[in-house]
Amino acid sequence: MTDSQRLAARVNEVSERELLERIFPRLAVLGSPILGPGDDAAVLAAPDGRVVVSTDTQTEGQDFRLTWPNGYRTAGADVGWKAAAQNLSDINAMGAVATGMVVSLTLPAETEVAWVEGLADGLVEAIVGLGAPGCTVAGGDLGLGGELSVTVTVLGSLEGRAPVLRSGARPGDVVAVAGKLGTAAAGLALLEHGPRYAGLGEEARGVIRAFCRPRPPLAAGPAAARAGATALMDLSDGLLKDGDRLGRASGVVLDLDPAVLAAHAALLAGPAAAVGAEPLRWVLGGGEDHGLLAAFPPSSHLPEGFTAIGSVVPPAGGPGGVAIGGRPAEPSGWDHFAR
Amino acid sequence: MTDSQRLAARVNEVSERELLERIFPRLAVLGSPILGPGDDAAVLAAPDGRVVVSTDTQTEGQDFRLTWPNGYRTAGADVGWKAAAQNLSDINAMGAVATGMVVSLTLPAETEVAWVEGLADGLVEAIVGLGAPGCTVAGGDLGLGGELSVTVTVLGSLEGRAPVLRSGARPGDVVAVAGKLGTAAAGLALLEHGPRYAGLGEEARGVIRAFCRPRPPLAAGPAAARAGATALMDLSDGLLKDGDRLGRASGVVLDLDPAVLAAHAALLAGPAAAVGAEPLRWVLGGGEDHGLLAAFPPSSHLPEGFTAIGSVVPPAGGPGGVAIGGRPAEPSGWDHFAR
Repeated sequence: MTDSQRLAARVNEVSERELLERIFPRLAVLGSPILGPGDDAAVLAAPDGRVVVSTDTQTEGQDFRLTWPNGYRTAGADVGWKAAAQNLSDINAMGAVATGMVVSLTLPAETEVAWVEGLADGLVEAIVGLGAPGCTVAGGDLGLGGELSVTVTVLGSLEGRAPVLRSGARPGDVVAVAGKLGTAAAGLALLEHGPRYAGLGEEARGVIRAFCRPRPPLAAGPAAARAGATALMDLSDGLLKDGDRLGRASGVVLDLDPAVLAAHAALLAGPAAAVGAEPLRWVLGGGEDHGLLAAFPPSSHLPEGFTAIGSVVPPAGGPGGVAIGGRPAEPSGWDHFAR
Repeated sequence: MTDSQRLAARVNEVSERELLERIFPRLAVLGSPILGPGDDAAVLAAPDGRVVVSTDTQTEGQDFRLTWPNGYRTAGADVGWKAAAQNLSDINAMGAVATGMVVSLTLPAETEVAWVEGLADGLVEAIVGLGAPGCTVAGGDLGLGGELSVTVTVLGSLEGRAPVLRSGARPGDVVAVAGKLGTAAAGLALLEHGPRYAGLGEEARGVIRAFCRPRPPLAAGPAAARAGATALMDLSDGLLKDGDRLGRASGVVLDLDPAVLAAHAALLAGPAAAVGAEPLRWVLGGGEDHGLLAAFPPSSHLPEGFTAIGSVVPPAGGPGGVAIGGRPAEPSGWDHFAR
């Protein structure tokens, strides 16, 4: 097969070995684990005798569309970036640093090899672009299936620290966030209901990029741990829903400041106007920005990347949860299994 | 919702939290990692400062059917068992011991909650039944999708030993196997082409069980490492194909003894007669038994569970591979991407 034929090839036109030989060299820029792809399993360093682990699947039709209603076509690199970013975010949310990932791909027979190569490039771009320099792609699995899906499992190191859980927030703590709020939801709304992608300006394209290639603040998780954060979690399902989880896990209420929420919403006025949406709903309920929600002890100096968004108050007899300006708020956001 | 309603429920009729609350208690029998499910990531011990990792996806329609042509209905517990067993086998094949796994499930909306509970039970049954006492289910991910798929990522400990790779076999070594050869392929043939399951006898049901619930010999991997095995791999794609991989990785030829192969084939005479198949083809080309293929130094005392099946010879100018009775053999077996 010549190189030009290969560029056009679909995955059922090449052997598994050929496909792997197209993928592995693209990952080599990341450096090497103790033992990389090619044997029955990989071996990674776990320098402090513990390993943090998280896994997440993205499925075509559920988590992304190959072609969106506004005409945007999802690149393989978008899917690879997002699969890596989501999982890197979970490691970040423990205050840990990623050490490596393994990737399992399920591919429809007609998937183009070039699209899969793009996916591998997207993994690398996210790892490099988001700042996870010690992270390698240590191995994976390839199989055919009716729908495209990508499962990434990422490992991380706590670097000798305790993991920062969801359960440690205490009344009097400062509630803070790092990263964007509602921007990915704005991007999703444009993809689903917005004007044609080809005619969009830079601001609109930017929020679409925030959905397709989220940017978890990977320096902020370890920084929060070093600064003594009492609780930390990934904002993947929306501020109110994730805030409710953190509040219940800690047995406290996170009381959010309406003025700060409004300031975040104001940043999304342009995209909101384009689709006739209320941007505060995106800030409160939009998922997949992969910022961090944290609690810090009273009068902490917040680490770089975090801004205060409220305070922790007692649960007032309930199980804990989230409030806005002192009023209990209904958690909303994503539930993959909601009716 | 009452308990009886819950038993009949489908996954889109319950919240993600309810579904997780039905699954987690079933996993608790396995003991606890440093940090288990419920936070952004789990934390497992990595006692020797390294961690072995492997990942594998099973997809409905590719790796299993919910209902087979012979009428056998795949239980959730079958899928859970096999997903765990396949991955435990990869850890075994490094000479390592499993310490934990994370599981990502993609479920069609109409999947019954009871089927998912069965899958969780199957994970536990495999971990306990195959003898992986230090292994926990540390976390996971749930999502909806058009087809059912299960990705397991398993972590393991080398217990201070070097990993046993595919690349260390040397001329003069003894080739040995642990576990079954061709039995899962016999089971697959009965599922696809055999008489109705309801009328089958115990021998036929046994080979179907070997396909649905493979039994990797988990004591044999670490035993091989302790005994000085020079090469070790999982037999997942068939003896000739996997043997060819090991031979090429080591730059040697694995010369298999035809009399031993015939003895393995004779064990499958009953199922072979039922579907008019040649059992030696199953022994040579059948995948998914998840036994081990190993090379040991000359005149080694083979560890328990291994039997000799041939010897390692020089590559005779070629890249290495596999032979039978001195004659080069064409590798066959599974290639998920073969035309």
